[in-house]
Amino acid sequence: MSRHPWVLATALAETKKPASDKSAETAPSNDEPAAGAPEANRISQQVDLLDHDGNWIARGLANPASRLRLRLYSFSRDQPIDDAFFAQRIDEAVARRRLARSTDHTGVQESGSKLAEMGERLIFSESDRLSGLIVDRYADCLSVQFTAAALLPRGKFLIDQVLNACEKHGTPCRRVIARMDPATAKHEGVAADQVAEVESWSRGISPAANGSDAATDDSSPMVWYRHNDLKMGIDLRDGQKTGGYLDQQANHAEAARYMAGKRVLDICTYTGGFALAAAKAGASEVIGVDSSEKALEMARQNAEANSLSQVRFEKADCFDHLKNCAGRGETFDAVVLDPPRFAGSRRQVDAALRAYARLNMSAVDLLPPGGILVTCSCSGHVSRADFLNMLVDVGRKRQRDIVILQSRGPSPDHPCAVSCPESDYLKCVIAQVH
Amino acid sequence: MSRHPWVLATALAETKKPASDKSAETAPSNDEPAAGAPEANRISQQVDLLDHDGNWIARGLANPASRLRLRLYSFSRDQPIDDAFFAQRIDEAVARRRLARSTDHTGVQESGSKLAEMGERLIFSESDRLSGLIVDRYADCLSVQFTAAALLPRGKFLIDQVLNACEKHGTPCRRVIARMDPATAKHEGVAADQVAEVESWSRGISPAANGSDAATDDSSPMVWYRHNDLKMGIDLRDGQKTGGYLDQQANHAEAARYMAGKRVLDICTYTGGFALAAAKAGASEVIGVDSSEKALEMARQNAEANSLSQVRFEKADCFDHLKNCAGRGETFDAVVLDPPRFAGSRRQVDAALRAYARLNMSAVDLLPPGGILVTCSCSGHVSRADFLNMLVDVGRKRQRDIVILQSRGPSPDHPCAVSCPESDYLKCVIAQVH
Repeated sequence: MSRHPWVLATALAETKKPASDKSAETAPSNDEPAAGAPEANRISQQVDLLDHDGNWIARGLANPASRLRLRLYSFSRDQPIDDAFFAQRIDEAVARRRLARSTDHTGVQESGSKLAEMGERLIFSESDRLSGLIVDRYADCLSVQFTAAALLPRGKFLIDQVLNACEKHGTPCRRVIARMDPATAKHEGVAADQVAEVESWSRGISPAANGSDAATDDSSPMVWYRHNDLKMGIDLRDGQKTGGYLDQQANHAEAARYMAGKRVLDICTYTGGFALAAAKAGASEVIGVDSSEKALEMARQNAEANSLSQVRFEKADCFDHLKNCAGRGETFDAVVLDPPRFAGSRRQVDAALRAYARLNMSAVDLLPPGGILVTCSCSGHVSRADFLNMLVDVGRKRQRDIVILQSRGPSPDHPCAVSCPESDYLKCVIAQVH
Repeated sequence: MSRHPWVLATALAETKKPASDKSAETAPSNDEPAAGAPEANRISQQVDLLDHDGNWIARGLANPASRLRLRLYSFSRDQPIDDAFFAQRIDEAVARRRLARSTDHTGVQESGSKLAEMGERLIFSESDRLSGLIVDRYADCLSVQFTAAALLPRGKFLIDQVLNACEKHGTPCRRVIARMDPATAKHEGVAADQVAEVESWSRGISPAANGSDAATDDSSPMVWYRHNDLKMGIDLRDGQKTGGYLDQQANHAEAARYMAGKRVLDICTYTGGFALAAAKAGASEVIGVDSSEKALEMARQNAEANSLSQVRFEKADCFDHLKNCAGRGETFDAVVLDPPRFAGSRRQVDAALRAYARLNMSAVDLLPPGGILVTCSCSGHVSRADFLNMLVDVGRKRQRDIVILQSRGPSPDHPCAVSCPESDYLKCVIAQVH
């Protein structure tokens, strides 16, 4: 038992009534909190995981409608999964973001008013021992995403606890947008009216794209926050994931250190993360490319908000754009590749690695000797070793020497529980190509 | 052909005379520079690597006395390995350390006079496409280490080029200590008089422990330099490797951000790297432990030079010390583990992983819930994946949740050529233990 927090339906033998058949593997916990009669396999029911000999292993919450049947939260037998338990885990998660003394480097761990204006991930599901809950903070606005149906009966309570922890740890918040995305709702067996209830927990901001209220300043889904040394806006209602790309915040800052005076191409720029950081750091010219016009509108708005005139954004397919640049004989001093996830499952890893190789070869073709390549992968199924081997292949095929300056993960506010390697997904390599 | 710079003797079929037998695999290069008759298999001879069909692959320098028979430097057929070639590679390596704009974070990439006072690795062998040459700078002093006999005929020239590049890139140096360590000399078939000749290339500093000159201030082997925000002294004559532990410089700074106000135990502290950084960052009490009294003397001297009174150093076996602490019921808010290399070869990996597990379990035992673990491995044969799996095991056996805040490599002045994964050796994990 490696303390992994997920138990799939296929891994379970059967469910037993409390204190009966010893060969079963899950049992409603005897100290099930304030929930009436222990009805087997009820959503959010507290359940004890036993081994085949009936030995206690761990405690979790059940979801009979999900392939992910049981999410484990505690490996300590005397620890009930009750309100106090969640309040403590939430406090620990927010406190974890305050462990490091501030630096001027990433700007993520600043103190006082600067910290209050910034964006950060406060709770990262399994990584914070809170499977099914993701909370990002953008200045005074919380984006709360539920990915587990089993947490919904306590949903409003959990949001209150996050607000309490924010207040306690120096970053009080007054707006909340709560949601469960449609694909997750389907996997978790959550009905539309329940999703609507989740959205009703939002405060001071309208979660629906066509809400009945006219958009006032305060209920607008557009939130402004500080991302490193930039003022950034995000649309929390329509943004990907929970809206921003906080996982790349430290990488944006670090990559930008190599961009001063350079001509930069940012492929899959989305709302301009690497491109704007490069421009702010003094790049002479920056071109950001993405296939989403909506993302690019946001990127342009961000460029304007920061008075960055040397950056421009173009709508194009990223593979096509790279090829067209090569066709024109265009070169760049630095190319950034931050594509969306190529491998959604283990079966897609080989195809994803071929796509990464194509993308990176095209990028390398635009770099003169000594040029900078910043290349990312957010595919959790593609290991760091595989990603680096892909770069070996790119160097061999293009007859270029690739020297890695930094092999980085996500910002420290995206921790990784060793027991859940699935949470170790982001690779960001900064290299020089000769 | 993955552009790996090493060709072992066992991988070579035979050596041919120029433009003769097509089935051979190495041939003296036709454009062998100014070296008289092309005598096959002479040390430092420029050699072309061919495949079994006689196709040109790469060019390198031969050493018939070494198991590492051929070091490859160029994969471009029209590129001779001559003085101009090495001058350019050396300039590129030093320029690589100036690629990133300065930050206040690690302090490594500072500008002007601050940079001149600091320590940094300027040339890292294969990682800088200069197999066999390692150069560290400590303020105005260069530590030059030759690990390839094939570079020795050009040794003095190479040192001059490094001095030139230092001048050009804003960090002029006036002292040099040159050496080849005895084990390397043996592997490379280098005789004692040649080793002595290497040492004779030193300038302004005496390479021998009992040099004939009385130690003047200027020729003393003790060099003072800035390591992050600390003044550090190192003994370049007797220090391990080339003297310091520059690869950990950024990790010292980053780990220290988590240490303010904490009681810290630094296991295998050597000359005090993590311990002094923690003390400087405001740790309430720091205990550094090492088995080398000589290293600890240096550590104490460094503590004094920086007026850090809350740190003390103890000579002990690290495993024993951890056990004794546990026996006394002592706890620490943070424990740092930076042991020497446990695995010197692939065969030793399993034993090394067991040793890492024992060491990390003992450290975790001293941490209350929420404590900080900084755990390092400099064993190149132990992969990052294996090291992280070891931590999964530690969590399971000790029934603790280990949450990784940062999974780091060496400082960016220790790059890694993708074609030579052997140069990717250092792992530094900063984690919180619950």
